[in-house]
Amino acid sequence: MSIEESGHFSVEQFFLALVCILVFSKIFGELAERIKQPSVLGELVAGVILGGSVLAIVPSVSTMAGYDTFHLLAEVGVAILLFEIGLETDLKDLIKVGFTSTLVAIVGVVLPFALGFGSIIAFEHMGLLGGSDPNLNLLIAITAGATLTATSVGITARVLSDMNKLQSGEAKIILGAAVIDDILGLIILGVVSGLIEASGSGDGGGVSTLGVGIIVVKAFGFLIVAILIGNLISKKLFNLVDMMRVRGVLLLSALSFAFIFAFLASLVGLAPIVGAFAAGLVLANTNQFKAIEHNLKPVSDFFTPIFFIMVGAAVDVSVFNPFVSENIPILLIALILFVVAVIGKFVAGFAIFKKGINRAVVGVGMIPRGEVGLIFAQVGLTYGVFNSQLFSAVTVMVMLTTFIAPPLLKIMFSKGDDTAEDSA
Amino acid sequence: MSIEESGHFSVEQFFLALVCILVFSKIFGELAERIKQPSVLGELVAGVILGGSVLAIVPSVSTMAGYDTFHLLAEVGVAILLFEIGLETDLKDLIKVGFTSTLVAIVGVVLPFALGFGSIIAFEHMGLLGGSDPNLNLLIAITAGATLTATSVGITARVLSDMNKLQSGEAKIILGAAVIDDILGLIILGVVSGLIEASGSGDGGGVSTLGVGIIVVKAFGFLIVAILIGNLISKKLFNLVDMMRVRGVLLLSALSFAFIFAFLASLVGLAPIVGAFAAGLVLANTNQFKAIEHNLKPVSDFFTPIFFIMVGAAVDVSVFNPFVSENIPILLIALILFVVAVIGKFVAGFAIFKKGINRAVVGVGMIPRGEVGLIFAQVGLTYGVFNSQLFSAVTVMVMLTTFIAPPLLKIMFSKGDDTAEDSA
Repeated sequence: MSIEESGHFSVEQFFLALVCILVFSKIFGELAERIKQPSVLGELVAGVILGGSVLAIVPSVSTMAGYDTFHLLAEVGVAILLFEIGLETDLKDLIKVGFTSTLVAIVGVVLPFALGFGSIIAFEHMGLLGGSDPNLNLLIAITAGATLTATSVGITARVLSDMNKLQSGEAKIILGAAVIDDILGLIILGVVSGLIEASGSGDGGGVSTLGVGIIVVKAFGFLIVAILIGNLISKKLFNLVDMMRVRGVLLLSALSFAFIFAFLASLVGLAPIVGAFAAGLVLANTNQFKAIEHNLKPVSDFFTPIFFIMVGAAVDVSVFNPFVSENIPILLIALILFVVAVIGKFVAGFAIFKKGINRAVVGVGMIPRGEVGLIFAQVGLTYGVFNSQLFSAVTVMVMLTTFIAPPLLKIMFSKGDDTAEDSA
Repeated sequence: MSIEESGHFSVEQFFLALVCILVFSKIFGELAERIKQPSVLGELVAGVILGGSVLAIVPSVSTMAGYDTFHLLAEVGVAILLFEIGLETDLKDLIKVGFTSTLVAIVGVVLPFALGFGSIIAFEHMGLLGGSDPNLNLLIAITAGATLTATSVGITARVLSDMNKLQSGEAKIILGAAVIDDILGLIILGVVSGLIEASGSGDGGGVSTLGVGIIVVKAFGFLIVAILIGNLISKKLFNLVDMMRVRGVLLLSALSFAFIFAFLASLVGLAPIVGAFAAGLVLANTNQFKAIEHNLKPVSDFFTPIFFIMVGAAVDVSVFNPFVSENIPILLIALILFVVAVIGKFVAGFAIFKKGINRAVVGVGMIPRGEVGLIFAQVGLTYGVFNSQLFSAVTVMVMLTTFIAPPLLKIMFSKGDDTAEDSA
C-alpha cells in the first residue's frame, strides 16, 4: 500500500533515485578503474549526470524536493568514510607528523588566500569584477581568497584508501593537515563573516581577537577532550557492548560513537567529519576494532557513494558552455582561480622538511576543495558579497580542483613509489 | 565547517536523532530480550519514547521538520528487511502453501471487516459515533472495517527471523498470506476511495468492476512478471557483476535489484516491501546469494531499527490518559475494535486444513496492523470520513495490535513447538 501523505519526494521517487545512485556510481566507478583512474572520479562524473543540470534524478540544489534527505545521507556517507579511515589510522603516527601537518596546513591556507586575493584585486582593476565601492571590492577579494583555502579531505582519503596507501607517511601528513585545515577554515569563516557583518552595519571593526580566540579554543578543546575522554571510556564501553546479545549491537554502538562525535564537532562549529575521524582514531584502540571494521564496510559501501554523487550533482554544467557569451568571463576567472588554487596547495607540500616523503603527493592531496569550498562560496552568495557571476566562477574552480585531484594523485603516487616510504 | 543552508532539519539534529535511534533501539531491544520478549518490542517502545508525544527527538508526524527524511529511511529499512527475508525463502515452498496462504488471507480480511463494520454500526446506534446522515454513517463503518483488514508483515517477519523460525511451515504461510493480503488491501483501498469519492460527488455508484479488475491485474501481473523475468535475468546479471572489481559492487547491485523491484511495486500501487520481498525470492536462486546475505546484514542492522522506531514514534501517548474525559469514549471504541481485530485475524489461522501447522501462530502472525493500518486510517481522516475521535480510536487499535503481536507470537511458538513442523 503506498499512499503518499503531503510528502514532496515520494517513496517511489526515493527508491528510483537510490537505484540510480547505486547503479551509476558503480558503473562509472568501474569504468574509471578500467581506464586506470580512481573509482571516485567515476562516481563524481555519475553525480554530474544524475544532478539537476543534466538528468535531475538526484536533487542537487536546496530548492529541489528531497534535497534535504540526500544532503543528510551524503553527510552520513562522508562521516562514515572518515570514521573508517580514522579506524585505520594510529593516533601516535598522526602526532608524530603533527608539526609537518601543521606547516602544510598553514602554507596551504596562506598561499592560496594571498594568490586568490591578488587575482581578484587584479580582476577588479581590469573592470572584470566589482563595482565602485572600494570597501566592497576588498571584501569580495577577501571572501574569494577564503574560498581557495578550503580542503575537502573526503576525496583524497577515498583515493588513498582505494590505493591501499592509508598507512603511508604522505597519508598521515595529509590527514593531519586536513584536520588542522578545518580548524583554520573555521577561523577564516569566523573572520570573514565578522567582516561581512561589520561592513553591512557600517561598523569599522567587527572581528575581535576574543571572538577568534574563542573559536580556536572551542575547536582544539573539542579535539583534545574528545580524544582523551574517548580513550578513557571506549575500552570499558565496548567491553560492555560485547556483553549485549541483541543483533547488530557492536556495529550500531560503533556508529553511534561516530555520530555522537560528529554531532559534538558540529556543535563547536567543526565539520562533522572531523568528529567522525576522531571517533575512528579512538576506537582503533579497542579490542573490537577489527570486527567493527568488518561490519562497517558494507554500510560504508552503501553510504559513501551518495556523498560523491551529491558533490558531482552540485555541478551546473550549463556554465561550461563557451557558446553562451556570459559564460566566457566566468570561465576565464574560474580558470585563473583554478590555476592559483592548484599552485597554492601544491607548493604547500614542499613546506615539508621530513625526508622520504613524496612532497608532490601531499601537495596534490590538499588540492580538492569539494563540499567545503562550496560552503564558503555559498556564504559569499548568501550575504550578497558574490554576484552570481563570481559565485559561478568560484564553483567552477571548486569543481575543477575536485575533479583533477584523484587522477593527479594516482599519477604522483605511482611516480614517487620508489622514493617514498610506504609501510603498507 | 557546518553552515546550514535554509534546511529545516540541521546536520547536527540529524546526527543526534540517528544516535538516539541506534542507542535507544539497542538498549530497549536488549532489555526486551532479557525479559524474554522479542527485541522488536523493545524497539517499538523506544520509538514511542523518542516520538513527538514524549521526547520529540525523532520527527513522528508529517508536519515536523525532518519527517520526510526519516519516513524515507524507514521505508528503506523495512524494504531491506523483507528483501533479506525473501533471500531466505524458497519460492517453491511459498507456492506449495499458496492455497493455504490465500485462504488465511481471505478469511483474515473478510472476518475483521465484518466484525469491525458491525461494531461501528452498533456504536452509531448507541449514539457514540456518526451523525444523522445514514449514507455517511455507512461509509464510516466501511472505512473503519477496511482499516481492520490490514496486515503489517514487517513486525511478524522480524520476530520470526529473530527466533530463527523463517524456515517453518507457519512462516511460509504467513509470508504468502501477507503478500496476498497486500493485494486484497489494495483492492479494498480502491473500493473505499471510490465509495468516498462517489459519496462526495453525490453519485450513486463510483466503484466499477473494471476498476477493481485493473487493480487486480496490475498487482498479480507485477508479481508474476517480476518473478519470471527476474529469474530469467538474475543469474546472468550477477555473473556479470562478479566480473566487476570496484568496491562493494555485489552488495550495491543486490540492493539496486531490491530497490528497483520496490519502485516497480510502488508504481502498480503495491507496498514497496512486496517488491523487495519478490526481489529476495529471485536472488535466492543466484550463485552469490550467500555473499549477498553476508554483506546485507550490517546494512539491514542499520536501517531496520529506523522503521520500527518510526512505527513506535507514531503513537500519541496522550490519548491513553484516562483522566482526560474525552479519551474515555476513544479508548472504549479502540478497545472493542482491538478485540475484534485480534479475533478476526486469529480465527483466520484456523482456516488452515494442512496438518502439522500451529494454527494459532499463523493467526497471531497476521494480527499486527502496523504502518499499513495507519495508512488506511490516514485515508479516512484525509477524506473527512473519520472525525479526530474515530481516527484516534483506530490509531490506538492499530498500535495495540502491533505491540501485542510480538510477545503473543513468541508464546504461541514456544507452546506449539512439539506439534508444529520445523525444518530449521
